[in-house]
Amino acid sequence: MLQAHGHLIDSGLLSQILNTILSKGADYRITSFDVGKTPEEVSRLELELIADDEQVLEPLLNALTAFGVFEKSVPSAQMIGAEKDCCAPETFYSSSNHRTEVYYKKKWYPVADQRMDAAIVYDKSADSFRCVKLRDLKKGDKIVCGSDSVRVYPTGAQQQKKGELFDTFAFMTNSVSSERSVDSSVEKIASEMKRLRDSGEKTVVVCGPVVVHAGGADALASLIRKGYVQGFLGGNAVAVHDIENRFFGTSLGVNLKTGEVVAHGHTHHMRAINKIYTAGSIKTAIDEGLLKEGLMYEVIKNDIPYCLAGSIRDDGPLPETVNDMIQAQSEYAQIIKGASLIIMLSTMLHSIGVGNMTPSWVKTVCIDINPAVVTKLSDRGSNQAIGIVSDVGLFLRALDERLN
Amino acid sequence: MLQAHGHLIDSGLLSQILNTILSKGADYRITSFDVGKTPEEVSRLELELIADDEQVLEPLLNALTAFGVFEKSVPSAQMIGAEKDCCAPETFYSSSNHRTEVYYKKKWYPVADQRMDAAIVYDKSADSFRCVKLRDLKKGDKIVCGSDSVRVYPTGAQQQKKGELFDTFAFMTNSVSSERSVDSSVEKIASEMKRLRDSGEKTVVVCGPVVVHAGGADALASLIRKGYVQGFLGGNAVAVHDIENRFFGTSLGVNLKTGEVVAHGHTHHMRAINKIYTAGSIKTAIDEGLLKEGLMYEVIKNDIPYCLAGSIRDDGPLPETVNDMIQAQSEYAQIIKGASLIIMLSTMLHSIGVGNMTPSWVKTVCIDINPAVVTKLSDRGSNQAIGIVSDVGLFLRALDERLN
Amino acid sequence: MLQAHGHLIDSGLLSQILNTILSKGADYRITSFDVGKTPEEVSRLELELIADDEQVLEPLLNALTAFGVFEKSVPSAQMIGAEKDCCAPETFYSSSNHRTEVYYKKKWYPVADQRMDAAIVYDKSADSFRCVKLRDLKKGDKIVCGSDSVRVYPTGAQQQKKGELFDTFAFMTNSVSSERSVDSSVEKIASEMKRLRDSGEKTVVVCGPVVVHAGGADALASLIRKGYVQGFLGGNAVAVHDIENRFFGTSLGVNLKTGEVVAHGHTHHMRAINKIYTAGSIKTAIDEGLLKEGLMYEVIKNDIPYCLAGSIRDDGPLPETVNDMIQAQSEYAQIIKGASLIIMLSTMLHSIGVGNMTPSWVKTVCIDINPAVVTKLSDRGSNQAIGIVSDVGLFLRALDERLN
Amino acid sequence: MLQAHGHLIDSGLLSQILNTILSKGADYRITSFDVGKTPEEVSRLELELIADDEQVLEPLLNALTAFGVFEKSVPSAQMIGAEKDCCAPETFYSSSNHRTEVYYKKKWYPVADQRMDAAIVYDKSADSFRCVKLRDLKKGDKIVCGSDSVRVYPTGAQQQKKGELFDTFAFMTNSVSSERSVDSSVEKIASEMKRLRDSGEKTVVVCGPVVVHAGGADALASLIRKGYVQGFLGGNAVAVHDIENRFFGTSLGVNLKTGEVVAHGHTHHMRAINKIYTAGSIKTAIDEGLLKEGLMYEVIKNDIPYCLAGSIRDDGPLPETVNDMIQAQSEYAQIIKGASLIIMLSTMLHSIGVGNMTPSWVKTVCIDINPAVVTKLSDRGSNQAIGIVSDVGLFLRALDERLN
Repeated sequence: MLQAHGHLIDSGLLSQILNTILSKGADYRITSFDVGKTPEEVSRLELELIADDEQVLEPLLNALTAFGVFEKSVPSAQMIGAEKDCCAPETFYSSSNHRTEVYYKKKWYPVADQRMDAAIVYDKSADSFRCVKLRDLKKGDKIVCGSDSVRVYPTGAQQQKKGELFDTFAFMTNSVSSERSVDSSVEKIASEMKRLRDSGEKTVVVCGPVVVHAGGADALASLIRKGYVQGFLGGNAVAVHDIENRFFGTSLGVNLKTGEVVAHGHTHHMRAINKIYTAGSIKTAIDEGLLKEGLMYEVIKNDIPYCLAGSIRDDGPLPETVNDMIQAQSEYAQIIKGASLIIMLSTMLHSIGVGNMTPSWVKTVCIDINPAVVTKLSDRGSNQAIGIVSDVGLFLRALDERLN
Repeated sequence: MLQAHGHLIDSGLLSQILNTILSKGADYRITSFDVGKTPEEVSRLELELIADDEQVLEPLLNALTAFGVFEKSVPSAQMIGAEKDCCAPETFYSSSNHRTEVYYKKKWYPVADQRMDAAIVYDKSADSFRCVKLRDLKKGDKIVCGSDSVRVYPTGAQQQKKGELFDTFAFMTNSVSSERSVDSSVEKIASEMKRLRDSGEKTVVVCGPVVVHAGGADALASLIRKGYVQGFLGGNAVAVHDIENRFFGTSLGVNLKTGEVVAHGHTHHMRAINKIYTAGSIKTAIDEGLLKEGLMYEVIKNDIPYCLAGSIRDDGPLPETVNDMIQAQSEYAQIIKGASLIIMLSTMLHSIGVGNMTPSWVKTVCIDINPAVVTKLSDRGSNQAIGIVSDVGLFLRALDERLN
Repeated sequence: MLQAHGHLIDSGLLSQILNTILSKGADYRITSFDVGKTPEEVSRLELELIADDEQVLEPLLNALTAFGVFEKSVPSAQMIGAEKDCCAPETFYSSSNHRTEVYYKKKWYPVADQRMDAAIVYDKSADSFRCVKLRDLKKGDKIVCGSDSVRVYPTGAQQQKKGELFDTFAFMTNSVSSERSVDSSVEKIASEMKRLRDSGEKTVVVCGPVVVHAGGADALASLIRKGYVQGFLGGNAVAVHDIENRFFGTSLGVNLKTGEVVAHGHTHHMRAINKIYTAGSIKTAIDEGLLKEGLMYEVIKNDIPYCLAGSIRDDGPLPETVNDMIQAQSEYAQIIKGASLIIMLSTMLHSIGVGNMTPSWVKTVCIDINPAVVTKLSDRGSNQAIGIVSDVGLFLRALDERLN
Repeated sequence: MLQAHGHLIDSGLLSQILNTILSKGADYRITSFDVGKTPEEVSRLELELIADDEQVLEPLLNALTAFGVFEKSVPSAQMIGAEKDCCAPETFYSSSNHRTEVYYKKKWYPVADQRMDAAIVYDKSADSFRCVKLRDLKKGDKIVCGSDSVRVYPTGAQQQKKGELFDTFAFMTNSVSSERSVDSSVEKIASEMKRLRDSGEKTVVVCGPVVVHAGGADALASLIRKGYVQGFLGGNAVAVHDIENRFFGTSLGVNLKTGEVVAHGHTHHMRAINKIYTAGSIKTAIDEGLLKEGLMYEVIKNDIPYCLAGSIRDDGPLPETVNDMIQAQSEYAQIIKGASLIIMLSTMLHSIGVGNMTPSWVKTVCIDINPAVVTKLSDRGSNQAIGIVSDVGLFLRALDERLN
């Protein structure tokens, strides 16, 4: 990373610098150029040298010094050992969800396991860096401190770097509005899901109980059956209400066909849980032929990796629910790993949880009837989430129809 | 209206009262009976005497006096003349939207033109009562004052009286929730609309511009074409965006097919207005073949009575927009008259306006993605409105499909 | 529970029944009385006999039989033993949050540990009934089945029974509206909190992180210091952001004084967690003088029972966070026990969790800027929650000022 | 406006260009410079020449041609005469709310009366351009067509041009979140209001009825009395409810002190209207001593220019309400003219109306409990509006306290 300040343009310095680089057989990439707007203002240039032969660089740098070019002080990463488990040095670099590189031993190392709010640890034996959550730090871990030796590629830059233009996702807008037709969103998500399925890539669904209440469970079950879903994340409630629906035709006691509140319907979810308890688990209920269809049925029958994370408001919970939050976060992270597309369906809690663990370059779509959910996701750092304000039941059915 | 207070039950008075009525050839209807829960508490009874022969009543009343029964003081309506135009006496009875009767000259008169927030005026020549807005009062109008001589039938009571049970609308719930499947609502509204069309009754649609933005305009146009709509109420904006959509394929500059913001799209609505200005009006644009399809096209082609009410936020406005609010309210009221069903589509402003003018016994459905709209309608007195929280574009398309 | 059907009133039967009861030295309470509105309709009466001397009842019942009075068939509770742990019989009675009694051995037993969605278990040794969550059932537990032998007192009835009128809470309305002045709510909650503190009763606060973001943490800390709070329920996030605020003056990176986003502020919550990790726990950070003020400081310094429940979206979590949801629910339930007032501050997740465990007669207030939260609480059965739609930061400060 | 494309930097052309300009006694301002990032990419430069002596320009331009510099084809504005009233040529330039200039007769003319969605008309006699709404166009008006000769300064640019940095408003963020403390916003708005008052500048308030319901009317009345408001815009409802409150202590029938629904309170707003009708107008009611305090009282007593715009949902309306929307828009525009600050208080309808008429450089703050309102304002082009999600009653009181 080289820098030059001053009256680069009118002095002719700039052209001399660039011509020198090329003449020495190297190449350049201008990373930043603030042009002085008026004759009085100085310009600031930052560029990277690119050379196949590293031996070219040293003499070139010396040559450029003559033009006032100095190496921007990218210091080698400062790393401090953790004094005890779970504790980072005070100045530890806290990661974002963007692609990150650390400058060390004169080169830029990519960081593995990218996620927000982690420390970056250097693994000496593998000569590599990766994100580690504070609670997973071990005494002695070498932790990157300060931000001088770290560079970050925000999403757009990253996409260009990979030569992708995400044409199908070009509908991204920051504005989260209920005043939009969802047709084009359905169309684009459908074709992306198809593309991913056909190329063996991974789509993960994060699913709230509203999907069942709003009449979208059958459509989502159908998408799973057709192979469009490779991971399923939710909580206890979505499973309870899906199973209530299969056993009693209701969701929270409301008949999903007629929309009427059924007598004693408010006890149905507890009866559903009791049936599963009696069978032993959702899986055994399926194996024994007790549970014959639905969302959880398709998830389990099709061996979709899934995790139902527990919460303070759970009834039951169902035997498959993971009640330890540390374990649930681990299972979520495992399922998200390598996903190309994450579809968040009307659950703020689990969506924010997923957003925390997901790199910013994973395409993320969030469908919710409440525009505030996407605003909040974005406030929490998951800016890549594209918000679609719609009725999740009707939306899923339109998506499923489109993928028939 | 007769009343009795006291220890009616344990004293045996109650049976004596009722037996006396029957023995005199009259009949009774108990309108209210608060039973004393314990021996110490008194009971309160209100009943109406029913007799084919009015001559029976006088002696019967005398006979009942012996049991402590007294006539509840329903005084004949007190009426005071308006001292000047637009001004009611200070104690004027301000109407609700429920069916109302006034006691006068020893009988109950029904009130015509029922709406909320009106005065009740007696027309001597026709010997009848009707609701009149304050601003329409004329000096000398006889205005009902106080509430002692007025009785009101809340919606439920009214329905029983008419012997209808509104089975198809039995899904009424007060709870306005986005966590419901809209399937059953679509089903019920569809069958009600069909029933009304087939029996020659009137369905009125109140329509906001979101219907266009959300991709519901074609479905609504189709419903109009198929004869399901007998009145169309909206503002300037819904017409502007519908016409923008027909001329440019966009709504507020967003391409409705692709969801993309079109270059210079934000000027489209003004160009659409300019085209209509140049043609002279929406009607002439249709007549000249300039405007060939869409919501306004179907409204005008099918001679649906309509009114576009102006507002402070209008662009243009279009020539058909009614810019005087007094006139717009009159036209709205005229179109609502006699409606059996009102469907409010994502416009708080016009829906509250319509609610103000509509009797409580008109079935009213309000579809909005924002649950607060229905809460607000209800706060403003339109408690009969059934709220459906959904995506209005998807909803209208489901409705139209169902009615194919 | 006695019942009589028929033409009770005009036949004079009713007065005979009541007089007979009184003449035998017993007393009555009419629990239900549907009066036939017309001579053709029959009336239906239900009443309870009250007698100090139980020996009076037998002959009295015989005497009443003559008038067609029959004992309503309240069968003795049917109880079935659990066949294995966690599993109730299929027809188990699933509890509501209302006060409940079970009819057994000819009398009504109150049910202890009232909460919604539990089974009711009979403890033979103590001759008593109590609510037990499905997951806590043990093989052999005697579980009430069916609803014929169960009676429930909805909140209103319960209040009358206890002779309380909750005057100070008479502002209860179902309508959840943002269009209300909060002054009177502040006033009433303040005087209720004062009354409870002065009489040694228990107020529990359920608190979301928005309290910190919205600038209400100091006010709530002040209320705790002044003795108005006897239990504190929340999650990891409220503690993280409170501590971030104390260490860095920010909440989610936003300076709470200036409202500006602070450079690198998005890392502050992780640095706060790291400081606590390094200290060992919040408690040790306080003991060591590292954390000197704030919400968690006051909670811990004042020995307020508290529980921070973990969730799938936690950063850290802090050492005091309870990550096992079964344990967290137990701790929550323990803290709620005996509460007279629960104040829910802008957290849907924890509020629904608390609602699930709380009897319906506990006064509950929910302050949130989003009206949907209270609707959802009510949909989940916590109908007693009074919703106040306001800015929780300004609200808490008004409350704290009022209690100075 | 000059342009140059090509390998400007490495070729040294750029420095030659700039040096030539300076050497001829002229100056430059670089308006745009896309730097080629790699040796292969070309750069694109746009700059403006600045010369005190216009005679310098011609020879300088010739000199620069040698370096491949060409004048960017800013054509003189094409103007077409309106063929009839209200009708613009099809290709008319539809204005934004940003500061705009038209290139004509070799110079840039500023456009007067800036607002969005207008045509730009050239007034030959005054040799000037201004925005004219379509409906105000007259046959023969010279209307700017196409966008080639128009340039626009978005808000940021404009502010820099004027040398202002709006430090006090540096809290602008796009994110509309309810999770913010409003303290700093109160502080900043207060100091800006004070600054404007003290310097004789103009603050305009746009006010919805929620201000009354939420208990903010007294605070706003106090701000008016203290001289902080120079224009008041609203509708009929805010005046009705303010006056209801003064006459009956209620707002929509709810007692503002106790929060209780008052018996017959739902008729109060009609009684308030009737009282005003009887007095003749709000003004006469004040003059006669009938109306003695409140929002409308202060507005009228202090001779604040105001406009109450009618709407389809009005009760009454009050005599001061402007029922013709064309006239109401004119009055609004007149009051907005020259405003330095506009404060929008919980009324989407009037706020969007105001946004349509307001140049983008007027500081605009929108306080609403519903985050969607600000999103919608922004969708409608009023991007400058800073949203504050809070309880408007508490907010106004905090603001008034701060300005004591």
